Amino acid sequence: MVTIGVVGGGQLARMMIPAAVNLGIDIAIFSETEGSSAKLATTHVGDYTNLDEISEFCKDVDFLTFDHEHVPLDLLKTLADGGLPVSPSPRALALVQNKLVMRRALGDLGLPQPRWAEAADESELPGAVESVGGFPCIAKLPVGGYDGKGVRVVTELDDLGEWITQGPVLIEEKVEFRRELSQLGARSSSGEWVSWPVVETRQSEGVCSEVIAPAPETPAAQSADASAIAKRIAEEVGVIGVLAVELFEDSDGQLLINELAMRPHNSGHVFTELSVTSQFEQHLRAVSNMPLGSTVLVAERGVMVNIFGGVDLNLASRARSEYPEAKIHSYQKQPRLGRKAGHVVITGLADANLLQTGIAIRDILNQRDYDD
Amino acid sequence: MVTIGVVGGGQLARMMIPAAVNLGIDIAIFSETEGSSAKLATTHVGDYTNLDEISEFCKDVDFLTFDHEHVPLDLLKTLADGGLPVSPSPRALALVQNKLVMRRALGDLGLPQPRWAEAADESELPGAVESVGGFPCIAKLPVGGYDGKGVRVVTELDDLGEWITQGPVLIEEKVEFRRELSQLGARSSSGEWVSWPVVETRQSEGVCSEVIAPAPETPAAQSADASAIAKRIAEEVGVIGVLAVELFEDSDGQLLINELAMRPHNSGHVFTELSVTSQFEQHLRAVSNMPLGSTVLVAERGVMVNIFGGVDLNLASRARSEYPEAKIHSYQKQPRLGRKAGHVVITGLADANLLQTGIAIRDILNQRDYDD
Repeated sequence: MVTIGVVGGGQLARMMIPAAVNLGIDIAIFSETEGSSAKLATTHVGDYTNLDEISEFCKDVDFLTFDHEHVPLDLLKTLADGGLPVSPSPRALALVQNKLVMRRALGDLGLPQPRWAEAADESELPGAVESVGGFPCIAKLPVGGYDGKGVRVVTELDDLGEWITQGPVLIEEKVEFRRELSQLGARSSSGEWVSWPVVETRQSEGVCSEVIAPAPETPAAQSADASAIAKRIAEEVGVIGVLAVELFEDSDGQLLINELAMRPHNSGHVFTELSVTSQFEQHLRAVSNMPLGSTVLVAERGVMVNIFGGVDLNLASRARSEYPEAKIHSYQKQPRLGRKAGHVVITGLADANLLQTGIAIRDILNQRDYDD
Repeated sequence: MVTIGVVGGGQLARMMIPAAVNLGIDIAIFSETEGSSAKLATTHVGDYTNLDEISEFCKDVDFLTFDHEHVPLDLLKTLADGGLPVSPSPRALALVQNKLVMRRALGDLGLPQPRWAEAADESELPGAVESVGGFPCIAKLPVGGYDGKGVRVVTELDDLGEWITQGPVLIEEKVEFRRELSQLGARSSSGEWVSWPVVETRQSEGVCSEVIAPAPETPAAQSADASAIAKRIAEEVGVIGVLAVELFEDSDGQLLINELAMRPHNSGHVFTELSVTSQFEQHLRAVSNMPLGSTVLVAERGVMVNIFGGVDLNLASRARSEYPEAKIHSYQKQPRLGRKAGHVVITGLADANLLQTGIAIRDILNQRDYDD
């Protein structure tokens, strides 16, 4: 029997459970808290920065992967040096743990990205801002940001506040983009690469709100570009597992790399219903030396709508009754304002009002109190 | 939070786990043995005929359902009388626990079935055989048979052996059928009924070997007939959950009811990939008062091929490499000759060689030793 260990008990680990069941392998999850979203397959609750605890967990797993990229690299190196296949590797994870490392690596590969500069301290700020084209620009904390946290639009130096006193800051050009895209694919340990069609992502307050797949009205050359960028990164960096490349399409139609993730990604949830192989199944296949699955689509189009706050089962029943074709996923999280709590997927014909339907379902699910 | 309890730790319970995860509800499974196919969600291991053990398990569940129909009815009545929603109800389950009860009930409803008779003892045998048209005919033990067990073709009275000394025997006409079909649908506690298209099933030695969905070359009137029969049974008997009606198509094209199951059924596995809503998700929705899901198909045709014996992960990898579009499910059972160990589903166009592909995959998976 094969057991895949997953560090992190969030919704991404949760959604690996159905994939493992269907593939016929065991999954063991290391969660930070009791009662996590992935509690069904949680075998250890502990601190993922503690080598002893992670090592204890790893005694019963054949392959190790993650639902987030926050495990310390030196800890992962120790495990990998001990013979455990850790995917993605510490070397690959380094890029997603630190945005400066990522920008440097992408620059070395000559891949298209926004102009960027590192400001190591306050004295370097004016030059950094100048080099990306001046204000307004984007400032990012290199480590620990997600979902709009650790990212600011800055129009003057004072906007940076205390950030610059805490360590280096990444300064990026503020791209005037037409739209945002996300390219997902997976690479296995044998070097096989399979990608899904590029999707369009829509953000609200820095957080992904809706996804349309495949991205509408996308020229074949642009799709090919997006896929080639992701493949190049996966191969050059040695990614094993799912890779998500978030892209800007600028006003000239050129693609620029915004962010990377080396694990299943919110923008790929739509493929659970839309593709023969979900990103969760593909990730498990890739990290456990299985051949990758087909990414053929089973419908012309799919739409994913994120649900924030919480998912109330009574409201879900109301929505399911009105929209029997919708797949309403709940992550069984404690409700909290703004929290990613679930998502909805609808698939169908390209000219169907899928996005409108998805948003109508979200409107039903949002008719909730946070006091209930 | 809602928890659905499932008695039985076989592959049907196993395949309810992904459905529960995606719906955002909890599932708790009562298994007979440690390390069962459904071990991931098993919360109790015990004897399902023991009221105390089942009652203890039921303390933590909001709804109770089954992966088999062997739980004693009086025990279920006690639980239901205590206020626990038990689905299907003891009244409905009575039909699938005893084939004589089923034949009588279907006769009372005037539904089409093979000629049948009860032989209470040896003296009634000749009359029973005569009344169904003579030899060869079919003899069935009323209780406990499955997958060809407890069923015999008899050509003379001696073929019955010791059966008749152990209690009543069901004697049925041996139908000269063109093919076998299976009609699946689900009924919820609110009375909602949703069905899938009728499928064709192919048996080998009394066990389902392949399923083609929808059943090829099926006149609309015959499909409507099959669905109407299932709906009538569900409504008259008060089935809540998935109902499978196994049917013969006789030489005149008429449908005759062969067997019933009131739970997800082997002939419905194909819908996990072929339909918007799988039978497992639909069953959980139905037994927990959720609205039912859409049964629209996402491909023209699907084929399911059973795998017997065991599923070796290396052979599965070989098959997955050659057929990346195939879904190879393993139930993680200990290999045993003839045991249902997994299944393969392929979906595609109606004129694709899906069945041939499915069988080719089984041929790869069957290249195994039982000593490994």
